[in-house]
Amino acid sequence: MITSTANKQVKYVSALLKKGKARREERLFVAEGVRMCLEIPPERIRTLYISDSFRGNPHYAELTEKVRQVEVLTDTVFAALSDTRTPQGVMAVVEQREYRLEEMAAAGSTGRPPLLMVLEQLQDPGNLGTILRAGEGAGATGILMDSGTADIYNPKVVRSTMGSLLRVPFVYVEDLDEALVFLKKAGIRLCATYLRGSRDYDKEDYRKATAFLIGNEGSGLSQETVARADVRIRIPMLGKVESLNAAVAASVVMYEAARQRRG
Amino acid sequence: MITSTANKQVKYVSALLKKGKARREERLFVAEGVRMCLEIPPERIRTLYISDSFRGNPHYAELTEKVRQVEVLTDTVFAALSDTRTPQGVMAVVEQREYRLEEMAAAGSTGRPPLLMVLEQLQDPGNLGTILRAGEGAGATGILMDSGTADIYNPKVVRSTMGSLLRVPFVYVEDLDEALVFLKKAGIRLCATYLRGSRDYDKEDYRKATAFLIGNEGSGLSQETVARADVRIRIPMLGKVESLNAAVAASVVMYEAARQRRG
Repeated sequence: MITSTANKQVKYVSALLKKGKARREERLFVAEGVRMCLEIPPERIRTLYISDSFRGNPHYAELTEKVRQVEVLTDTVFAALSDTRTPQGVMAVVEQREYRLEEMAAAGSTGRPPLLMVLEQLQDPGNLGTILRAGEGAGATGILMDSGTADIYNPKVVRSTMGSLLRVPFVYVEDLDEALVFLKKAGIRLCATYLRGSRDYDKEDYRKATAFLIGNEGSGLSQETVARADVRIRIPMLGKVESLNAAVAASVVMYEAARQRRG
Repeated sequence: MITSTANKQVKYVSALLKKGKARREERLFVAEGVRMCLEIPPERIRTLYISDSFRGNPHYAELTEKVRQVEVLTDTVFAALSDTRTPQGVMAVVEQREYRLEEMAAAGSTGRPPLLMVLEQLQDPGNLGTILRAGEGAGATGILMDSGTADIYNPKVVRSTMGSLLRVPFVYVEDLDEALVFLKKAGIRLCATYLRGSRDYDKEDYRKATAFLIGNEGSGLSQETVARADVRIRIPMLGKVESLNAAVAASVVMYEAARQRRG
């Protein structure tokens, strides 16, 4: 049993929780909580960390039986390490999974035409997590992000996605414009959400292969990305509202696509 | 000029920023930032607090000329008092405005049939702010909240609403069920967003007087409120998503109403 926060493994996990650089270099991330850990394929779990008292948890056997390595921490050390206020007593160090751009451009697992979200310079981890979760609900087949978008393995994102992180394919690209050209060549229509867009979002047809482009919370999409889009759509706003929260805007357009696709 | 954080006024404003009880008792709240303060009707501002260096701001004259009382704080004291990381140098102590339930049940300012959001036990200030802002954008004519919902005058909400707080009528009610009965008698159709709802949200007609009922982030609406509703609507979810973020769900149904009302 690990009894000190000065323990090497504890420091290692702590770095993975706090530092994007450590996550990138090690190609690992940390997931906390019973439900989240139950959903991770055991072969992707490098090490499962549990608190001493978690050994009495009804999910203890299920969570630990197929995992390569299990380490027990005293409750105090676990609580100190945990990223949550009320730790459940279980966290997993998980291997990151890489998706390829080609997978993004392909049809969804059920053969549906691609429905993508492309995020440019989205800064807020909470927004990113909310978009991933709402995206899965609306039938997104993939998420494409530029390197300036928040880290999807940030503990806040991992927590707020409620497992969508493990289910929705995603990829980070170095050159967003190049990726957009690739998607266009693959027959995917690029729809930029844009405050000065010329088309109301609900007047376009999203039943064929579609990608919604969503920009930064403060400044929106770059002019280069807007120019690359096939259509610039706007969400009508009444009152004196100047813009919507990025996650709200993404959800509204995604659910319009879902509505049309159910139709 | 106020030069110490021990100053009585500074302590008073600090309490208004931090304590819901102080806000309720004094019937005041605090708004920060140039844009927000410019939008507040000057007669509602009890005192405007500015930092020493804000006197060089181009909006200084406009912001201070019609206000009853202006107090200057040293930059250090202002920064210590401020609820934001990068204070703009201006904050206002503002009188709360009461709306009545009768105003909620009446048509919107442009004669549109009422489009209300009813929030039950919504806990997260960020969600509340986002709902208020998206609600204004979608044409909400009012927001009704039970006393268990987060404080709309919480600085986080004030900031995240981007001014919608000043423009969308709202009311807190002690007895939610009684208020719902009142709305029903006024001819407003109550649509409960409900995970086990029987109707897809986009199959209902929201062009007439409508209220969407939105529940707590974790547990949703109470059974009593669900039972009171005229219809229980669900937002279809693909993948393994079990629920949507409350602000996302509210935005999706509100924007469906807006879409129908645009015709």
